Amino acid sequence: VAEAYQELAARLQDYWSLGKIEAILEWDMQTQMPEGGSNARARHIELLAKLSHQHFTSAETGRLLDAAAGETQNADPTSDEFNLVRVARRDYDKARKVPTELVMEMSRITTLAHSIWAKARTDNDFKSFAPTLEKIIELKTRIAECLGYTDHIYDAMLDEYEPGLKTADVASMFETLREDLVPLVKAITARAEAVNDSVLHQDFDETKQREFSEMVVKQFGYDFGRGRQDRAVHPFETSFSRDDVRITTRFHPKWLNPAMFGTFHEAGHAMYEQGVGEKLEGNILCSGVSLGIHESQSRLWENIIGRSYGFWEYYFPKLQSVFPAQLGNIDLETFYRAVNKVSPSFIRVEADEATYNLHIMMRFELESDLLAGKIKVMELPDAWNAKSQAYLGITPDTDTVGVLQDVHWSAGLYGYFPTYSIGTILSAALFDKAVEQCPNIPAEIKQGKFDTLLNWLRTNIHQHGRKFDPKDLIQRATGQPLQSRSYMNYLKTKYSAIYGLS
Amino acid sequence: VAEAYQELAARLQDYWSLGKIEAILEWDMQTQMPEGGSNARARHIELLAKLSHQHFTSAETGRLLDAAAGETQNADPTSDEFNLVRVARRDYDKARKVPTELVMEMSRITTLAHSIWAKARTDNDFKSFAPTLEKIIELKTRIAECLGYTDHIYDAMLDEYEPGLKTADVASMFETLREDLVPLVKAITARAEAVNDSVLHQDFDETKQREFSEMVVKQFGYDFGRGRQDRAVHPFETSFSRDDVRITTRFHPKWLNPAMFGTFHEAGHAMYEQGVGEKLEGNILCSGVSLGIHESQSRLWENIIGRSYGFWEYYFPKLQSVFPAQLGNIDLETFYRAVNKVSPSFIRVEADEATYNLHIMMRFELESDLLAGKIKVMELPDAWNAKSQAYLGITPDTDTVGVLQDVHWSAGLYGYFPTYSIGTILSAALFDKAVEQCPNIPAEIKQGKFDTLLNWLRTNIHQHGRKFDPKDLIQRATGQPLQSRSYMNYLKTKYSAIYGLS
Repeated sequence: VAEAYQELAARLQDYWSLGKIEAILEWDMQTQMPEGGSNARARHIELLAKLSHQHFTSAETGRLLDAAAGETQNADPTSDEFNLVRVARRDYDKARKVPTELVMEMSRITTLAHSIWAKARTDNDFKSFAPTLEKIIELKTRIAECLGYTDHIYDAMLDEYEPGLKTADVASMFETLREDLVPLVKAITARAEAVNDSVLHQDFDETKQREFSEMVVKQFGYDFGRGRQDRAVHPFETSFSRDDVRITTRFHPKWLNPAMFGTFHEAGHAMYEQGVGEKLEGNILCSGVSLGIHESQSRLWENIIGRSYGFWEYYFPKLQSVFPAQLGNIDLETFYRAVNKVSPSFIRVEADEATYNLHIMMRFELESDLLAGKIKVMELPDAWNAKSQAYLGITPDTDTVGVLQDVHWSAGLYGYFPTYSIGTILSAALFDKAVEQCPNIPAEIKQGKFDTLLNWLRTNIHQHGRKFDPKDLIQRATGQPLQSRSYMNYLKTKYSAIYGLS
Repeated sequence: VAEAYQELAARLQDYWSLGKIEAILEWDMQTQMPEGGSNARARHIELLAKLSHQHFTSAETGRLLDAAAGETQNADPTSDEFNLVRVARRDYDKARKVPTELVMEMSRITTLAHSIWAKARTDNDFKSFAPTLEKIIELKTRIAECLGYTDHIYDAMLDEYEPGLKTADVASMFETLREDLVPLVKAITARAEAVNDSVLHQDFDETKQREFSEMVVKQFGYDFGRGRQDRAVHPFETSFSRDDVRITTRFHPKWLNPAMFGTFHEAGHAMYEQGVGEKLEGNILCSGVSLGIHESQSRLWENIIGRSYGFWEYYFPKLQSVFPAQLGNIDLETFYRAVNKVSPSFIRVEADEATYNLHIMMRFELESDLLAGKIKVMELPDAWNAKSQAYLGITPDTDTVGVLQDVHWSAGLYGYFPTYSIGTILSAALFDKAVEQCPNIPAEIKQGKFDTLLNWLRTNIHQHGRKFDPKDLIQRATGQPLQSRSYMNYLKTKYSAIYGLS
């Protein structure tokens, strides 16, 4: 039975494995590799990109796709088989549109760009990065033209990370958010002095920071028998199979937040990958379906759980016993308020929950204008500073903490930022639904128990991997399309209480 | 000019890169990978083995080899170009003889065999490993039959690790060694009480063991900017390019030798790989030429340097200051004698310099008889114990410390052991030649300086990579074929002094 399907699945497994092998090399590069290794590593990664693209886009894949589609056309549309063929077909049609040489050129230039960007950022020298950025945008534009689009060139890029998402959808999502968010942030910042977070800025031993964070994420449900944590300059999660899912973090010796909330965040991503159904292991459905869904998991554990009062009722006494000198005399209320301090700041990854989406809006508007040719690369720093003033009320002193802060544009990742906001909004929608269906979740959190919540996420999100498109998955999990009410209610309720807003 | 040559070199570079990528995955598997990762990892490695073999043995490689041979036929026979084509042709002709399916089957069965062997070793249960061993020998025999041989099937296996080496060469080498070694070891063991090494068996903090060893190998010339050291169950060296060469070690909390001499040993391998000529980077000549030459480097730094009196004149005071409680009251002479204690023992990797080659002889005789069908797998434990009694004068209590001790047979590595003896013998021949040409080397060692020695090795061995065959390389470096006089003189002189032999 289904001979072509079996052959297709085997062929796709090799294609998928090549991507995983590439991920192993990237992980090593960012966590272990000695400095000298970089030239050879760029060559190895480019080779894998080439082999993978050639293997996947070959005529043989196309032949098997046609035959397997015939074999599965009457299959249950929610079955793994039907959806494997469906997703493979879509991926194939897209990948065929881009020539292998262009894929390799993009791999080469972005590997090269990484160090040029990093140096420009250190030196506060946007001009030295501008020509490379122009080249990347040119390549990205060529790729988008190959992929095709109807309304906006940026649509072709969004679709890479969030299948089916359009520029107009994102614009309308931010329109809605902006109406609520801007006045909320304004009201909070008018009462900025209501929260003092100096307690988080003390000497915190790294080993102890690590032990505490890892103890917590183990209790969340991150399985270290199928994972590990390492140090990296830019924290990330990566997976080589559902049984080898790794996270990374960075430590600040005088600030508790980056490693602790960073570990919660990355563990949220990792539990998603570890939770994909066992029967999907090794095939092209075995991973998170989109960056937006992924970010909903990370931000749920980082913020909705990790910055909640109930969570700290249980964990603050434990943290106090790890850092008695620093936290022994601090009360729970003060600590809870400190980890939730809202303050417009330059750096996105250190932003609080209320201002975070304003950072994303800026980037979305700038990059979609950039791709549409409405602004030029050399105008980017001024455009950045103007948006920062408009949305956050502050203007960066330097490009280092402004337009040069993020790695994404140097890596060719355009259309990626909006998924951070989608995930943030979705995290609240999912949590509301989970609590509606399992009302004991908040009480469990106060006892350091997360089984019910994790099982709900496993059942409704994780196990499906890439089987359902994001829109379907959200509809199935929450019973409705993505909505921002849950998120705005969450923000308003939480921060009105903390800041005493009326 | 030389169009086909350029195309061939590019094609071979991809083939070579696939092998390096596989090495990255193996390194990760042995040093970093969480337990859960093993199934997917076996799949990824098998895929790389397949792609690599297919790519290399394709008709296209053959066409380019023919054309490039035409282009380079009048080139200088010592040039990189001439030798790249020569070595590639030999590798190609060999690889073409083995079907890809057989390569993949061997990859699968040996990955599987690793844990079966490890469990049998722990459980002292040879029988549970025997069927797997029989299967591996069957596959290995099939591969050897594919490769072909004139006199002995074992020749086909030796040639994998030491191009051109024959069973008869190895037998005659051991014949010569045996005549001298057996009486020497007998004379030493008659005076066993002359050396006491209890000073090495104390509590030694792991971090300090590590810091001391790494300090030493840095001074040897191992470049940590192009390398790193990690922990592994079975220590090894591996390289992903000449600029990313990694070593591993294991620590014994109550015994100084394993981590310290192990690090010297692996650093010896690593400096060879780091010293390959820069212009060879990325092509198939960029690595050590054979296991024998490789082992000459590791054993030179581990033993001829690392167990010499001059070395410890400089380093013992430093080691004392690292471990004042354990070594503060010990004199140099006592310590030097301790690290050179000779004592027949069961475990090869812990053997002293004098008995080491007897361990190798046993294995050579057993595995060549096994492959020739003279003994059967089930007879192996008894045959092992009889050889052990004959050569070392001791019989293992269990198969765990006997026939099951080494990983090699479970990994399909037959013909590998003799290279350890070749390397050991060669290490002394090379050192003699280096000192003859640079008489200041011994004086430099006493000052913790190794530049002259390392430069001599770089010039005469390292830089050439795989450009010259082992026999040519030995002739070029020492002015004569491999000889064991240097090694036997070294042993006799050193141990006569230590044990007061006449």
